[in-house]
Amino acid sequence: MSLWFGKHLIKPAVTFLRTELSFALVNRKPVVPGHVLVCPIRLVKRFKDLMPEEVSDLFSTVQRVSAAVEKHFGGTSLTISIQDGPEAGQTVPHVHVHILPRRTGDFEKNDTIYEILHDHDKEADSEKWRSEEEMAAEAEQLRKYF
Amino acid sequence: MSLWFGKHLIKPAVTFLRTELSFALVNRKPVVPGHVLVCPIRLVKRFKDLMPEEVSDLFSTVQRVSAAVEKHFGGTSLTISIQDGPEAGQTVPHVHVHILPRRTGDFEKNDTIYEILHDHDKEADSEKWRSEEEMAAEAEQLRKYF
Repeated sequence: MSLWFGKHLIKPAVTFLRTELSFALVNRKPVVPGHVLVCPIRLVKRFKDLMPEEVSDLFSTVQRVSAAVEKHFGGTSLTISIQDGPEAGQTVPHVHVHILPRRTGDFEKNDTIYEILHDHDKEADSEKWRSEEEMAAEAEQLRKYF
Repeated sequence: MSLWFGKHLIKPAVTFLRTELSFALVNRKPVVPGHVLVCPIRLVKRFKDLMPEEVSDLFSTVQRVSAAVEKHFGGTSLTISIQDGPEAGQTVPHVHVHILPRRTGDFEKNDTIYEILHDHDKEADSEKWRSEEEMAAEAEQLRKYF
């Protein structure tokens, strides 16, 4: 079955975990190494649109993926965030949870991460995206944790 | 049963929803009107420390509380975030989900909200806390949604 992230058809090679109702993918423009996304398979715009089973599966998946990226990328903390709607910085109208491994001194100011997060998936930045090969290689590494 | 948020004993008057494994409380220093917190009742520091039933109950509660504060405070979007560990800005070592109703123009820059969020619960800011009466009045209003 094809996986969609908003209007974007997602290649299996850039995903690294799929559950009954959710999937995890690497980021085309990570804010920090290991910045990944977890989404419900069903394309819904807002968190409130998720069914109870989808909420449960989504955050069970977030917990598993968080542990994997924190370990794989040597983090000591995690930023876990949903920009739920355009006024919160959501640019892809499909619920997605940002997971970012954090470590001391990764940003001059902790909050700097969010300035970049807010802008990270804008179409205008497409020239800064990573290659599919680079993304597929990272996904292959993360797949080993599941 | 007493509710703890880290080392802080929480008065029932400032809480507005309690489920089997989670509870929601108003904020002593909200970043925006309607900035509330949802916590697991069990005091655990990191998201990875939660049992599957706690993760499911926590985010089911976040979904219910999000809908209520977005409606009550006239938001059009929501910022939902976990600062999971000190390097991510966590200052109270008890898992807590920040829920912030958002609207157009609430901040000059969307990300400004996180600068304040990062600092919002530091003890040094205690002189800026709201009164218990003000917090209890807000909790009473929100209790009506559940």
